[in-house]
Amino acid sequence: MEELIVKLKEILGPDKVLTSLEDRIAYSYDGTFAQNLPDVAVLPESTDEVAVVVQIAAEHRVPVVPRGMASGLAGASIPFSGGIALSLTRMNRILELDEGNRTVRVEAGIVTADLQAYVEERGLFYPPDPSSNRQSTIGGNIACNAGGPRCLKYGVTGDYVLGLTVVLADGRVLETGGKAIKNVVGYDLTSLFVGSEGTLGVITEALLKLIAKPQFVRTARAEFPSLDDASRTVNAILSAGIVPATLELMDETAIECIEEAMHLGLPLDVEAMLIIETDGSDEEAVVREIEAVARICRENGARAVEVAQSEEERAELWRARRSVSPSLARRAPNKLGEDITVPLSAIPEAVRRIKEISARYGLPIVIFGHAGDGNLHPNILFDKRDPEQWARVESMVGEIFDVALELEGTLSGEHGVGTLKRPYMEEALGPVSLDVQRRIKQALDPLNILNPGKVLP
Amino acid sequence: MEELIVKLKEILGPDKVLTSLEDRIAYSYDGTFAQNLPDVAVLPESTDEVAVVVQIAAEHRVPVVPRGMASGLAGASIPFSGGIALSLTRMNRILELDEGNRTVRVEAGIVTADLQAYVEERGLFYPPDPSSNRQSTIGGNIACNAGGPRCLKYGVTGDYVLGLTVVLADGRVLETGGKAIKNVVGYDLTSLFVGSEGTLGVITEALLKLIAKPQFVRTARAEFPSLDDASRTVNAILSAGIVPATLELMDETAIECIEEAMHLGLPLDVEAMLIIETDGSDEEAVVREIEAVARICRENGARAVEVAQSEEERAELWRARRSVSPSLARRAPNKLGEDITVPLSAIPEAVRRIKEISARYGLPIVIFGHAGDGNLHPNILFDKRDPEQWARVESMVGEIFDVALELEGTLSGEHGVGTLKRPYMEEALGPVSLDVQRRIKQALDPLNILNPGKVLP
Repeated sequence: MEELIVKLKEILGPDKVLTSLEDRIAYSYDGTFAQNLPDVAVLPESTDEVAVVVQIAAEHRVPVVPRGMASGLAGASIPFSGGIALSLTRMNRILELDEGNRTVRVEAGIVTADLQAYVEERGLFYPPDPSSNRQSTIGGNIACNAGGPRCLKYGVTGDYVLGLTVVLADGRVLETGGKAIKNVVGYDLTSLFVGSEGTLGVITEALLKLIAKPQFVRTARAEFPSLDDASRTVNAILSAGIVPATLELMDETAIECIEEAMHLGLPLDVEAMLIIETDGSDEEAVVREIEAVARICRENGARAVEVAQSEEERAELWRARRSVSPSLARRAPNKLGEDITVPLSAIPEAVRRIKEISARYGLPIVIFGHAGDGNLHPNILFDKRDPEQWARVESMVGEIFDVALELEGTLSGEHGVGTLKRPYMEEALGPVSLDVQRRIKQALDPLNILNPGKVLP
Repeated sequence: MEELIVKLKEILGPDKVLTSLEDRIAYSYDGTFAQNLPDVAVLPESTDEVAVVVQIAAEHRVPVVPRGMASGLAGASIPFSGGIALSLTRMNRILELDEGNRTVRVEAGIVTADLQAYVEERGLFYPPDPSSNRQSTIGGNIACNAGGPRCLKYGVTGDYVLGLTVVLADGRVLETGGKAIKNVVGYDLTSLFVGSEGTLGVITEALLKLIAKPQFVRTARAEFPSLDDASRTVNAILSAGIVPATLELMDETAIECIEEAMHLGLPLDVEAMLIIETDGSDEEAVVREIEAVARICRENGARAVEVAQSEEERAELWRARRSVSPSLARRAPNKLGEDITVPLSAIPEAVRRIKEISARYGLPIVIFGHAGDGNLHPNILFDKRDPEQWARVESMVGEIFDVALELEGTLSGEHGVGTLKRPYMEEALGPVSLDVQRRIKQALDPLNILNPGKVLP
């Protein structure tokens, strides 16, 4: 390891190779409770430098764990086997904006919100909006195939990736895709690296598809005495051919937590609230669409439907949804947020079963999420200092996953597998799928140096 | 081979194992000029039977070449190395329509138009619309990641594949994906098999995403004296935040051919025509959108813009676009249709360079295609009986590919690589990409029995 560090410092210069304990601690964690020190943190500034790091790591058989801003929620960027924490954060440039073709080429380390602000100033739009977008990087978003509220209408991160620059496990540089919107030449390597969580290659640059920025938006909030009605409403809206930009659900516990913290005057006697947004380039059509949404809500049992009449009112409606996560801190010192996705029709059953788990274990679970996609975030509230509570939380997570799988759903809609969901992969995907995935990993990273111990059990 | 055939007949029954010359001829071709006899054609009726066929093929090291209706345009389903032509056409059932979750599970051999008619009767919609959809199968569409005019707004085949059942090279059955709309659990195997042209596994079933059927549609045709103006218009429409369902281009030679054949009164003094369609669930919004499209066409140099005022007028506008391919037969006995995709801004340059190739080689090239995606179909008109003409055609194809690559485009937007484009893969993708693809092929099909000699050079 010492020899490797000397070599890295020689080639990259000492300011890009950090070895003090303080520095190593800074690269030891992500957005979960887990943590492990790397032997060294490296901050390359170009694809070529990343390639050199990976080559040296391969020569020394040392793990390379790529990371952006480490806001991930599955432990994917924690260097559990030590080795090199490879931070892409210094590679944060916009390399080319092609306004005529609505594409942008960026380095992996750019913060997503920074990219979004840059293109929106020019009338363009990068839709994927993980709630971490002010911290997380495009490279991390791609490595996890991040989602967000707007994915219902606009699709997930992967739907905007036209091409990638990837450093392979032997240090060679792979270019995938290109500016052509349709491309069926060879295997879809771009999609293979999207969501691979740094285990198949290090994403260093991305060519992204942009769209015209929607000019108009309308927002509604609907209160449902019955969760079943709220869920039926989600389906009724989509069946009517309306695809809202967002269609967010909060359950009664979420509403209570927000109200305790924020005093927004939210109703405490409903089972669910929906926040629905329509957008587009034709103001009248956007207004007509939100009116149709409001009508469908009322027809399906909403007690009250409020449509924002101004930007201030719209911000007010969103305050509730945005406050969910911070509000939970008042209830308990810690929360563990899961990320299951179920078929739309199974949402009520999923929520019922999760509430039953909460009651049985005696720890609150708050449920909110992207209802239009069936993507729910059950958050378990607890006190981590109490080992007995932590043990209960771990069992509860397993039962929540069982619910997702029994309802034909999946363990993760947008957070990824990382380390935390690995133990459940066999049950979720079965032995044949895992064998195929292991063969692909083996084919691309035969020495198992790229983010070892992640994704595949 | 005889032993293998005996075994197949024993296990599947003789009516599913065809060996007569007539039968083998029926399974020897696709939509190209190429042809080669299989040793045997096999028509399994279930995933299990496909698995048995592949197992036996693996034991005997005999090639398995999957095919649907063999309407492909790249030679992907021709058994060039003999072996087993594996026809999926008897597996054409709809297995489950889940109206609540808007999904349908089908066998791979169902004809795409049959599936579309079935779901549309129930108010649902499967958007991808390759022009072969009355012949081609869903399995073939998925294996080639087929496109079509509607892909501009709705995306390509792969965007609707939620999950697959795939028989692997060793006869094991892999299930990928599921009903959850968002799924980031493990590598995206679904996308890996989409577009893999039968070289990584045999797709036997698919779980497809449906949407609500758009209730209203409006169509416009715009005549452009200048091709550059037509191309600029495409970009202006998309930049305005309008995403038409289709945005089709025909060049002057295409217009001439159609007019010669059909006498529709098309203008012979323009360089290009666009056919543009808007659709949705709100009639007024759809009308406003087509009006905005018409205005943008006029502002960008369209000489005349016609918006269909009735279903009859709409059918009339589409007659021209639908007649392109058949009309070409009047000009020459044969045509070879290519499928390049270029960035939108490069369309005028691509068309100019292709016309220059046509002039230099003295053979007409007709250009039409899905302009909104940059996907152009240059069709070379010639007489195949004349070997000297065929030699010219082969050189012309190479030069058309060079044009696509020089303009940051790609060899194929929706037809695939098959056999025909293999010689150009190295130039298009480079050695690193090909090496990665070969490693994946080797990992999943180490005996190289699945559609050998296709896609990868």
